[in-house]
Amino acid sequence: MKNNLFKHFVKLRVRNFEVDWQNIVHNSIYLQYFEIGRVEYLKNIGIDVSAKEINNNSRVVVVRNEINYISPARFDESLIVQTRIKFIKNSSFGFEGIITEEKTKRLISDNISIHAWLHQKKDISKRIDDAFRRKVKLFEGKNVDFIS
Amino acid sequence: MKNNLFKHFVKLRVRNFEVDWQNIVHNSIYLQYFEIGRVEYLKNIGIDVSAKEINNNSRVVVVRNEINYISPARFDESLIVQTRIKFIKNSSFGFEGIITEEKTKRLISDNISIHAWLHQKKDISKRIDDAFRRKVKLFEGKNVDFIS
Amino acid sequence: MKNNLFKHFVKLRVRNFEVDWQNIVHNSIYLQYFEIGRVEYLKNIGIDVSAKEINNNSRVVVVRNEINYISPARFDESLIVQTRIKFIKNSSFGFEGIITEEKTKRLISDNISIHAWLHQKKDISKRIDDAFRRKVKLFEGKNVDFIS
Amino acid sequence: MKNNLFKHFVKLRVRNFEVDWQNIVHNSIYLQYFEIGRVEYLKNIGIDVSAKEINNNSRVVVVRNEINYISPARFDESLIVQTRIKFIKNSSFGFEGIITEEKTKRLISDNISIHAWLHQKKDISKRIDDAFRRKVKLFEGKNVDFIS
Repeated sequence: MKNNLFKHFVKLRVRNFEVDWQNIVHNSIYLQYFEIGRVEYLKNIGIDVSAKEINNNSRVVVVRNEINYISPARFDESLIVQTRIKFIKNSSFGFEGIITEEKTKRLISDNISIHAWLHQKKDISKRIDDAFRRKVKLFEGKNVDFIS
Repeated sequence: MKNNLFKHFVKLRVRNFEVDWQNIVHNSIYLQYFEIGRVEYLKNIGIDVSAKEINNNSRVVVVRNEINYISPARFDESLIVQTRIKFIKNSSFGFEGIITEEKTKRLISDNISIHAWLHQKKDISKRIDDAFRRKVKLFEGKNVDFIS
Repeated sequence: MKNNLFKHFVKLRVRNFEVDWQNIVHNSIYLQYFEIGRVEYLKNIGIDVSAKEINNNSRVVVVRNEINYISPARFDESLIVQTRIKFIKNSSFGFEGIITEEKTKRLISDNISIHAWLHQKKDISKRIDDAFRRKVKLFEGKNVDFIS
Repeated sequence: MKNNLFKHFVKLRVRNFEVDWQNIVHNSIYLQYFEIGRVEYLKNIGIDVSAKEINNNSRVVVVRNEINYISPARFDESLIVQTRIKFIKNSSFGFEGIITEEKTKRLISDNISIHAWLHQKKDISKRIDDAFRRKVKLFEGKNVDFIS
């Protein structure tokens, strides 16, 4: 993954209850970190991610996560979560994320997540609407692949 | 994945606080479910997974997770988590897991996790010891691939 | 608290990711354990605790928790969570819970939680309905105090 | 609780996975929020809360939590967690915390937590050491009660 493709980041501090008995952040917690990155990314490009929006209009569900744990994060470290949308297909799209530790610049973890756009009431896939596509295009420019 | 390769399972009930605002289990929680499966699997084949063992002898860390979310699990459903060790390399090994809902038989999720064996004090990989290999071999028989 | 007032229990196993860097269960996790006890208690006396029920009819929210941490629970211990409804007022009621470790019989924690019954759409308290009162009375007998 | 006794605060944003099926923050999560407040408070007055310190010198464990849920917090709200040490006894001390929502100024929750100072290896209480007392006194001034 090339760092310079990322235009969005958030900073997070590792909390003591996220650290397990090995004194490192538990492997499930990084999925929360990447999700915080994605939610802030979407807010930043003007997409409503409130429950109301999700419940009345359409649903977006995570269908796959790939995550590599490269260097363990520890209590009180400051993490930089970078997030971008990598591709948009007909009814699914992919986020890419990387986490770096601020002080030591260690690469902590990377993540690809795939998200499917569904009808509100049925588990049937739905074309990702144009407003979403436009907002991502506007923010990412040519870094995002539109596939379909 | 072929169901009939799995010789171990645990049952879990979906708890209300594991369900998010979409009324489905949050994507990070499934990693906890698969980890419960792995811990019970290891206990079952006679491997000590206590913190003491991990801290004094050697460390095992998760280096990668791949997870597919196939059908969302909901509050109070009974989940069957099946677990097996799929391969053992020199200093890493792979678990495979699948989650099925008990009543409807829906396939909920599948997971591949890769684990590295490290020296206790240093972040240097270490050959997986023979006792571990023997116990896995004894349980899995020819279903586990020993690579290298 | 007198143990013999409790007529309901569930068993839980302590999971590795519930244990913190002190090798003991994190203080926030016990609230999840007690909630599991309460949900199973309600199911057991015939009260629907599904999200649908909560969203269409009325809402029950936790308004207070008191919890004592008496002996820390550790990885892989088997916990017995005992639950009872202690009192029912006009629009609120109180649960009492205790957690004991199965093998050593250590008292782990106790909890009092207060729950308020609200109108579905407004944050206004509502009299606890008679069906709920009847079911609790039937199960608890004279051990529950009806106060109003 | 009087707001003006508090000299320390942190800001937190409510994350989507902290919200439950009622679209409000789950009751166990507030304990995490208050703990974040306490950890930042201790760091701020110069007390090391790393795992190493806890494991080599002495242990501090939570022995009681009292928490009131006053107004539910919702997704994406900005919370102000105020924290102070209210009293110090021989081998235990009490934190007080309040959470307010930044925009609406709603009081969300308040908390009293009691913490015991223990010997590193034994579950025996230990007098809180003078360095801790001095640092708290320096920060809180006459707002903290030294009891014993």
